[in-house]
Amino acid sequence: MAISNIRYGEGVTKEIGMDLQNLGARRICLMTDKNLSKLPPVNAVLNSLAKYGINFQIYDNVRVEPTDQSFLDAIQFAKKGEFDAYVAVGGGSVIDTCKAANLYAASPSSEFLDYVNAPIGKGKPVTVPLKPLIAVPTTSGTGSETTGVAIFDFKELKVKTGIASRAIKPTLGIIDPLHTLSMPERIVANSGFDVLCHALESYTALPYNKRSPCPSNPINRPAYQGSNPISDVWALHALRIVAKYLKRAIRNPEDREARANMHLASAFAGIGFGNAGVHLCHGMSYPISGLVKTYKPKDYNVDHSLVPHGLSVVLTSPAVFAFTAQIHPERHLEAAEILGADIRTARIKDAGLILADTLRKFLFDLNVDDGLAAIGYSKADIPALVKGTLPQERVTKLSPRPQTEEDLSALFEASMKLY
Amino acid sequence: MAISNIRYGEGVTKEIGMDLQNLGARRICLMTDKNLSKLPPVNAVLNSLAKYGINFQIYDNVRVEPTDQSFLDAIQFAKKGEFDAYVAVGGGSVIDTCKAANLYAASPSSEFLDYVNAPIGKGKPVTVPLKPLIAVPTTSGTGSETTGVAIFDFKELKVKTGIASRAIKPTLGIIDPLHTLSMPERIVANSGFDVLCHALESYTALPYNKRSPCPSNPINRPAYQGSNPISDVWALHALRIVAKYLKRAIRNPEDREARANMHLASAFAGIGFGNAGVHLCHGMSYPISGLVKTYKPKDYNVDHSLVPHGLSVVLTSPAVFAFTAQIHPERHLEAAEILGADIRTARIKDAGLILADTLRKFLFDLNVDDGLAAIGYSKADIPALVKGTLPQERVTKLSPRPQTEEDLSALFEASMKLY
Repeated sequence: MAISNIRYGEGVTKEIGMDLQNLGARRICLMTDKNLSKLPPVNAVLNSLAKYGINFQIYDNVRVEPTDQSFLDAIQFAKKGEFDAYVAVGGGSVIDTCKAANLYAASPSSEFLDYVNAPIGKGKPVTVPLKPLIAVPTTSGTGSETTGVAIFDFKELKVKTGIASRAIKPTLGIIDPLHTLSMPERIVANSGFDVLCHALESYTALPYNKRSPCPSNPINRPAYQGSNPISDVWALHALRIVAKYLKRAIRNPEDREARANMHLASAFAGIGFGNAGVHLCHGMSYPISGLVKTYKPKDYNVDHSLVPHGLSVVLTSPAVFAFTAQIHPERHLEAAEILGADIRTARIKDAGLILADTLRKFLFDLNVDDGLAAIGYSKADIPALVKGTLPQERVTKLSPRPQTEEDLSALFEASMKLY
Repeated sequence: MAISNIRYGEGVTKEIGMDLQNLGARRICLMTDKNLSKLPPVNAVLNSLAKYGINFQIYDNVRVEPTDQSFLDAIQFAKKGEFDAYVAVGGGSVIDTCKAANLYAASPSSEFLDYVNAPIGKGKPVTVPLKPLIAVPTTSGTGSETTGVAIFDFKELKVKTGIASRAIKPTLGIIDPLHTLSMPERIVANSGFDVLCHALESYTALPYNKRSPCPSNPINRPAYQGSNPISDVWALHALRIVAKYLKRAIRNPEDREARANMHLASAFAGIGFGNAGVHLCHGMSYPISGLVKTYKPKDYNVDHSLVPHGLSVVLTSPAVFAFTAQIHPERHLEAAEILGADIRTARIKDAGLILADTLRKFLFDLNVDDGLAAIGYSKADIPALVKGTLPQERVTKLSPRPQTEEDLSALFEASMKLY
């Protein structure tokens, strides 16, 4: 299992010019989005590039919750620029877009679908060498700085899908907690929910030695290998941080300790799920985001409807873990305890219900929308939501409990209202 | 922080032929020692090489607790062989020897001292590309499969020193618990003590942001960076496994769960200390091993006197942690609790004494020799032991509490008798 390069510390962003010099880079592509382009994280990078005399071009047209179209726009920019290194400053949308731009610029004759996950794309292995990519996360959720995954909305099918290959993993992730201080409340909350689900899903994912088919040659093993003794360490550690710090980080932007810890937890959970994988919350989240109607979340400064990724993931979590607990009830109970449940008199067969209740209480305390109904879905949408989940088998097959279409319907239905 | 590639599972050694094929290797150097060369771990590798038609030469002349001379012998073999990959099957002695052979074969014009740690050697940075090295540990202690360190006895000065560079870190560590089943009791114990001290020392090491000098360019930072939020995760996790499984692994060779967990703990602690570093137990252990008189440990089938590395490290641990606790008492107390101490009524200022007592009890229960006196040292040896510690500043400067020569004398004296 390969893990990631990360550097942590307040202000470490200022070293990025030196890192690029050390890499011998002369033409940098700096990717970000329009909101961030005027904010301190991008300024810190620009100052360091100037100090070390690094040439760069800025691409600030990244779309929050990117699409195949927005990926293609960034790819075109990257192809034209002939860059020898990339710097992504932003949340998962920016980092994922930059991974895709780096990949397709390095593989100019490829069709876009070549590297997109099967069955939507061809899922070809990446064999071309990519340029170095330094990721500077400004949200505390995706862990994209540590993973080989890039997610986007495939507009034609109205589903999220992505590209998954160790080859697109950033060369270095710069975890600078200073960048978390300007995050609005709901962005802290929703990105934190992503960390929560990364940890819970990777800890409860199908174990690595139960996955099938099991490619006999190690080189053909997928990036998502199932839960294993190493990803377990990261998942549990991230979950403990979430339990201790997420509420504090959301409620008080001045709580540097909480925000710094959540920034690390995002990377830690990323290292865990980047190896183990995620399962049903993520698999079901892609149509929840992809089929968005008119929902516009608080604190997101965008001109289109969107369900923030972390929100789309967490709304089904009570139903999902009530469903999966029958396979590893002790792990579900352990997770509930870490999240604050009193399990002294708990029966192991109630593990799923206890974790579900714990999650519902956690979300209620944080003023999370009351289920899928509150973000615009009704029972009539369930067939489309199920249909959008079926192509996500890269992750759904990592669920410890196999699921039928009826199971998925029931999970969506149980997630319509939480409280 | 870069972490290591490891693969874990019973029987995964059988994939090594495929790994070498995937690496495009055609001429392999298989390093081991004479005891191991007829045992199941080497057989498993040989079977896999045969199955995949991989050409190889065996070097089985590795010395347990290697010296500069034994390193040079292996280096000469490697230079002649013009290998394109290395496989090391054994404990830390084998893996470290293989790292050195790979390094100097790749840098044929270098003098031996060029890469040896300053001040004994020149400590030059490694800039040559090395060949892939796959490490298959057969003991559960050094974590050498995850680190960029190779340790040897420098005979002329009668001290242990080493080579430390990320460049010599193995490409892949194969953590196959089957290999632990043939380990004799004292090898399990002593290698387990190494894990214990890796975890305790890296958890209590000087924090990464207190280290000085702090090279302004990240590329010049040492491999041993001081304790940090990531190494802390590995150190604590490894310590918990030691607390739960070490005694079981020592006492019952059939306890597969305990031996498998200690095999993983060795790698986990290696990932931790390989980034954070170790401090006084390790710094003081090098002269304890290097100045060995006539001690011959049980269960080691060698024709020379030796103090096993893990034993040389653990014998000073009660004195060391009683000394360092004044800096991070809460971490020392936490470690004592993990190792089984009841700290409910403990006072924080007693943290060092509590951890020292906990360690003494732990060692007593495991029939460990009663201090340095029991392995042949007396008060008269203390000046030489101190003198042998002074050149180990690469590690001793990571002690949270700075130490004078008088402090070192007192630590050796306090370690003469434990119970």
